[in-house]
Amino acid sequence: MFTIEKNDPLCQARTGWLKTGHIEAETPIFMPVGTQATVKTLTPEDLYQIGASIILSNTYHLYLRPGEKLIKHAGGLHRFMNWERGLLTDSGGFQVFSLSAMRRISDEGAEFRSHIDGSSHFLTPEKVMQIQMDLGSDIAMCFDECAPYPCNYEEARQAVERTTLWAKRCREAHHSDSQVLFGIVQGNVFPELRLKSAEDLMALDFPGYAIGGLSVGESKQEMYHVMQNMDGLLPRERPRYLMGVGAPEDLLEGMRCGVDMFDCVLPTRLARHGSAYTRGGRITVRNREYAEDFLPLDADCGCMVCQGFSRAYLRHLIKAGEMLAHRLLTYHNVYFLVNLMKEARETIRQGRYMEFYHSFLAGYQI
Amino acid sequence: MFTIEKNDPLCQARTGWLKTGHIEAETPIFMPVGTQATVKTLTPEDLYQIGASIILSNTYHLYLRPGEKLIKHAGGLHRFMNWERGLLTDSGGFQVFSLSAMRRISDEGAEFRSHIDGSSHFLTPEKVMQIQMDLGSDIAMCFDECAPYPCNYEEARQAVERTTLWAKRCREAHHSDSQVLFGIVQGNVFPELRLKSAEDLMALDFPGYAIGGLSVGESKQEMYHVMQNMDGLLPRERPRYLMGVGAPEDLLEGMRCGVDMFDCVLPTRLARHGSAYTRGGRITVRNREYAEDFLPLDADCGCMVCQGFSRAYLRHLIKAGEMLAHRLLTYHNVYFLVNLMKEARETIRQGRYMEFYHSFLAGYQI
Repeated sequence: MFTIEKNDPLCQARTGWLKTGHIEAETPIFMPVGTQATVKTLTPEDLYQIGASIILSNTYHLYLRPGEKLIKHAGGLHRFMNWERGLLTDSGGFQVFSLSAMRRISDEGAEFRSHIDGSSHFLTPEKVMQIQMDLGSDIAMCFDECAPYPCNYEEARQAVERTTLWAKRCREAHHSDSQVLFGIVQGNVFPELRLKSAEDLMALDFPGYAIGGLSVGESKQEMYHVMQNMDGLLPRERPRYLMGVGAPEDLLEGMRCGVDMFDCVLPTRLARHGSAYTRGGRITVRNREYAEDFLPLDADCGCMVCQGFSRAYLRHLIKAGEMLAHRLLTYHNVYFLVNLMKEARETIRQGRYMEFYHSFLAGYQI
Repeated sequence: MFTIEKNDPLCQARTGWLKTGHIEAETPIFMPVGTQATVKTLTPEDLYQIGASIILSNTYHLYLRPGEKLIKHAGGLHRFMNWERGLLTDSGGFQVFSLSAMRRISDEGAEFRSHIDGSSHFLTPEKVMQIQMDLGSDIAMCFDECAPYPCNYEEARQAVERTTLWAKRCREAHHSDSQVLFGIVQGNVFPELRLKSAEDLMALDFPGYAIGGLSVGESKQEMYHVMQNMDGLLPRERPRYLMGVGAPEDLLEGMRCGVDMFDCVLPTRLARHGSAYTRGGRITVRNREYAEDFLPLDADCGCMVCQGFSRAYLRHLIKAGEMLAHRLLTYHNVYFLVNLMKEARETIRQGRYMEFYHSFLAGYQI
């Protein structure tokens, strides 16, 4: 399923191949987020053009709407959304804790009210496995408890314990020939708990491990400490997936620490807010300064948007409330990250990743 | 500029070629509307795929935002919006009367307040010509006064008189080697006034004539009477353009009466409301009955949306508030009309347009 192709000599970065189900992907990889069975504003065809090999979709959202049974009835999520490449579904754990109202968590599972209509639901590890099997994604994730930030050691410890308990039940409940199941390491910013969580999950022998519970409010320094720490705790021969992290500087740091997979809503969310990535940093195209700027978003970018449209045109679309603005900015931002990873892979293969890391960060204003 | 290729033996329908500026179009043609320098949610590439040869953009909107000078500075509207095919700009007359607030019209011009920010503006025929020349569209339209519906004979007569006066001034003020100017026939539902308006404009010898002031509230019967009447009044060797009319049944009736060009916001507006054209009539995909309907929008449609996505998926996107719903429905609806015209042209060439007319309408529920 996962083959390492090349290790960078100066850091933990590596390139590899991930092959399972519909996935045939080079790693490290950035996976755009398609929360509600669509990467907002984009078609599968756009994503093929961009070069995306895996997208992430959200179990919590699809369970609530349109429901996993409807998607199963449609022939699975790939067929439902007309996507022929890789699909990873998260476990819903993070959304239960961040989106839903009135949640009550016990070892049995999580009771919560829907953020859509207030209806009451109870998710257990077994139920979460059934949902993801019905969705038919290529990679499923264990149901986990994501402790908030900040939280004290005891709270974080309990979340780790429950995450282990649930991971065992997920492992038992999961039966699929076409879907693999990844474990999620929790532990907040506490190194001992990250170690404990990693050991517990490794004892269950998952084909891949995710680093969960980051990018939830902690500082970049704290996040980077966990990432650096995790490298030594996870088996190098299995893929590592850093969940919910996608700022360009964080992707570079993640790869340096040997992370193979990333997902993040940032490129799509920034697009909705009228912002775009460039090699020099993020620009807010809706700002007045771009009103008569007839240059592309990023002169170095080869995407369809930068080939055809100016900042002035994009700003006009934003000011006029035109959806095409969101679509074009989303396309560009997703392209930017997917192709940043492609460039990083090239430099890893050439043994000069750290050179790329430093040169990119020198030009990129955070 | 306009060459008639084939006249149908049983009605006034004809096929032809329109060639001027960036336009190289077979007629009859449906022109999608790109009000604010974008056909809502679609890229130029989408429109090439769909087969659109001309799009309409709105002088009133572009004058107010981002301003014609900015667009001129960008290299013209084609360059600004990255569109390489035909562009027709309307005169702004209709929008001044339908969108703006506190308008005051005199023979000199129209004073009004912007619907965007309430700012005060004064448009004259000369100003409208300058704006359209700055935009650099392939076909410009004369500034006209569109009488409301209902209105009495005297009001309609005055609007015709002013439209003639303004048309003369437009003719004089218009200087372009790459843009042609069409006249707009007014006259509301009064045959004598339509005759008067047509004669006045024909005396100015425009390369094309538009039928304005329809689809503003009158009944279909009244609209069809004007269309049928206009055929005898306009020169057959010049293109005829029926403004703002685009329901499939109206397109068919228009072609029967010898109309060559149509534009309408209906396909894009319906998409925003969750509706789609099919050969059987319009369907409202957001309705509950499509929740588990895994068929395409229209089984007979060859568009990208019908090839890849089900009604159930589109309904899910609508319910989830996903923009991709608007985009896919817009694509389908525009494709539907553009390709309805293509099919009509084929049947005109084969001398069996009336057969197509009757068979389409027999299956299409209005």
